[in-house]
Amino acid sequence: MPSFGNILLSHKGFKKVMKLSNFGEKFGSSTGIQILMDDIGDALNSGQDIIMMGGGNPASIASVEAVFKARIERLASEPKLFSQMLGSYDPPQGNSSFISDLASLLRRRLGWQVSARNIALTNGSQAGFFMLFNLFAGTFKDGSKRQIQLPLAPEYIGYADAGLGADFFTAAHPQIDNLDDREFKYRVRFDDLKVGADTGAICVSRPTNPTGNVITDEEVEHLDALAQANDVPLIIDGAYGLPFPGLIFTQATPFWNPNTIVCLSLSKLGLPSARMGIVVANEEVIQALSRTNAIINLASGNFGALLAQDLVSTGAIIDLSQQVVKPYYIERLDFTKRILNREMDSQIPWHMHKPEGTMFAWLWFKDLPISSQTLYERLKARNVIVVSGHHFFMGIQDDWRHSHECIRINYAAQSPERIEQGLKIIAEEVRKAYLG
Amino acid sequence: MPSFGNILLSHKGFKKVMKLSNFGEKFGSSTGIQILMDDIGDALNSGQDIIMMGGGNPASIASVEAVFKARIERLASEPKLFSQMLGSYDPPQGNSSFISDLASLLRRRLGWQVSARNIALTNGSQAGFFMLFNLFAGTFKDGSKRQIQLPLAPEYIGYADAGLGADFFTAAHPQIDNLDDREFKYRVRFDDLKVGADTGAICVSRPTNPTGNVITDEEVEHLDALAQANDVPLIIDGAYGLPFPGLIFTQATPFWNPNTIVCLSLSKLGLPSARMGIVVANEEVIQALSRTNAIINLASGNFGALLAQDLVSTGAIIDLSQQVVKPYYIERLDFTKRILNREMDSQIPWHMHKPEGTMFAWLWFKDLPISSQTLYERLKARNVIVVSGHHFFMGIQDDWRHSHECIRINYAAQSPERIEQGLKIIAEEVRKAYLG
Repeated sequence: MPSFGNILLSHKGFKKVMKLSNFGEKFGSSTGIQILMDDIGDALNSGQDIIMMGGGNPASIASVEAVFKARIERLASEPKLFSQMLGSYDPPQGNSSFISDLASLLRRRLGWQVSARNIALTNGSQAGFFMLFNLFAGTFKDGSKRQIQLPLAPEYIGYADAGLGADFFTAAHPQIDNLDDREFKYRVRFDDLKVGADTGAICVSRPTNPTGNVITDEEVEHLDALAQANDVPLIIDGAYGLPFPGLIFTQATPFWNPNTIVCLSLSKLGLPSARMGIVVANEEVIQALSRTNAIINLASGNFGALLAQDLVSTGAIIDLSQQVVKPYYIERLDFTKRILNREMDSQIPWHMHKPEGTMFAWLWFKDLPISSQTLYERLKARNVIVVSGHHFFMGIQDDWRHSHECIRINYAAQSPERIEQGLKIIAEEVRKAYLG
Repeated sequence: MPSFGNILLSHKGFKKVMKLSNFGEKFGSSTGIQILMDDIGDALNSGQDIIMMGGGNPASIASVEAVFKARIERLASEPKLFSQMLGSYDPPQGNSSFISDLASLLRRRLGWQVSARNIALTNGSQAGFFMLFNLFAGTFKDGSKRQIQLPLAPEYIGYADAGLGADFFTAAHPQIDNLDDREFKYRVRFDDLKVGADTGAICVSRPTNPTGNVITDEEVEHLDALAQANDVPLIIDGAYGLPFPGLIFTQATPFWNPNTIVCLSLSKLGLPSARMGIVVANEEVIQALSRTNAIINLASGNFGALLAQDLVSTGAIIDLSQQVVKPYYIERLDFTKRILNREMDSQIPWHMHKPEGTMFAWLWFKDLPISSQTLYERLKARNVIVVSGHHFFMGIQDDWRHSHECIRINYAAQSPERIEQGLKIIAEEVRKAYLG
């Protein structure tokens, strides 16, 4: 990512004079997700009129905000709850009362056999993944190394740098199924997926950020069987998924068993600021995670837990997801598809991953004459921020051409008018790239 | 810590069947701080009438809570601020507007030459220390190893497990100055302090948790000179210190220069739930830290920043600290000293570290016939929780007898009546230990 890097270096005035450890060399240097977040921050803070379709910021949905506003007013008016919201450290596992209510919701509504011992809260999903990945992969006492196996790339950019060691991820190439209406769908190529002695855990996001893919129930069952046969956990990242925020637009069954680690979040429901990640796993995993959280974070924040407590205890969080949040995103998706079909030059071989979930459109420009990174830069020069697809192919060893032909677009973080404006510019730049 | 460990193992039903990495073996296992936090959580959640003098929970001060209540009501009533409080990811460096206001406060009130590029926010101080320590110590590219040098033990228990590698800390023994009125004071033994090629950074808390010691201005200047001469940063942990929450009861000058990393927090002002750590350092350190934070946490929560923004922009945070928070703790300290002097058997060689800051009394029982850990257990059996002093001597290589003769008491997290009750029980158990 040379041009990203240069931008970062120049605008921050970075001079590398410090003596940093190996950890420092890896984590303190410029990385994909850092650049993505910097772009988001810079765009929000710049005076420029930026159309931000790059980040994962959820939409601001008025009726969801109203729910939380009422809740905050109640918290402020109840002295005991209010004192707790400000002045108590939660245990390292997370807010006990929220955890009990969530366990009971998951039992009641999904039939998962979980208790309060099966849930831990972290300061956002990202912090949860950092801890989980490094608990299960990296270097082991006997000197052996294990990797996190991604069943298919592209996968979430936030995983890319989370490993403490090198060569932390390995990923299988997906099978590309061409569908009607310029749509395609990635499928797990089980023949390209090697799970064995060097696998620490299998991890897949469902729905998948960045593609909007939802791996099928059959794929999940197959992955679960592979994980169990190899005695490693299957991690399902449900940050956009089930049971909340419910951004899955096709049939998909929520999946958990004691060998599965399901990660959930309140971010995409509308609470990214609260940094609330939720991990559902067997007791041993939850205990190891809680201990790790104690060392790294002392305790997690309880703002998210207190904000969402009522929604969880009543189950309204699922209904709000299904009746308000999901329809909102589906409407935005339909709009985006309409504009794309209108604006994209029909002569161009553009495709979109079948949008089965998330808030992203994953566009594939087959045989694109420039790299997706160059396309990103040209769009950025026109004040439109997307994410170049190549960031999402960590763990793929070869320089697969397909990985330089895609971009991710957040179609929900801006108003429809702004999205339309952004898509027009994208269509223009893509046309220029193909046709000059 | 065998007995702690057993309690933990039995009540959590832990069975170690997972294959954990070296990271997992270290971080997912039972550690001092995890046990401390578990005890806090368990005590708060148990039906027992526990006198909790163990944790670092700040006092709930009504007039401080009133300030934050008014602020929350304002946030809830201003749609733009409210949307931001729920629905935006801050940049990895932290909330930009809070950072600017804080930089300008530090310039204005302390004369520190800092800009917004010199400040980063983390999800609590603990997360900041995890990142900082591992950026500067551990294994380096050339295979060499560097340690975090603690100028004197005892030091903050939360540091103990934060290193990714083994032998992460080294500490110098303190000089013990005997003062009047059963008081003593630790001083840095510069002759026992080895800063050299294997030092990654020097770190000291000021005031010191657990002792309430405040290293003198001369000691700080000496440490700064050592750090600069060896080209390593001096980290000053001001979680209880200056300019806020101001829990320093003697003369001490706030210290910062571009080779110094000052860590601050909103926790002891009364906002532990908000998990807000603040790091003030040169631009290179802030950039490396922000990048690390992006990978590990994506973004920090902004609840604390929004809550305290007004206090920081007006400077009221310093006045509130000096005029409300500090006097509150001094009153509690005076009460504690009075009860201790009344309740402790005068025949017993008990001493208290000169209470120059924090919210802790550090009691030293010279030649105590039982270990401080056994004393902890006997107190726990009587529903009084303190912390055994031996946890705070990480980095001390020998089995120094003094390290098993001390306990830390939080004298402010409970009502005076409860503290009095707890101190009576402590006095009884200590008497029994000495005199049978």
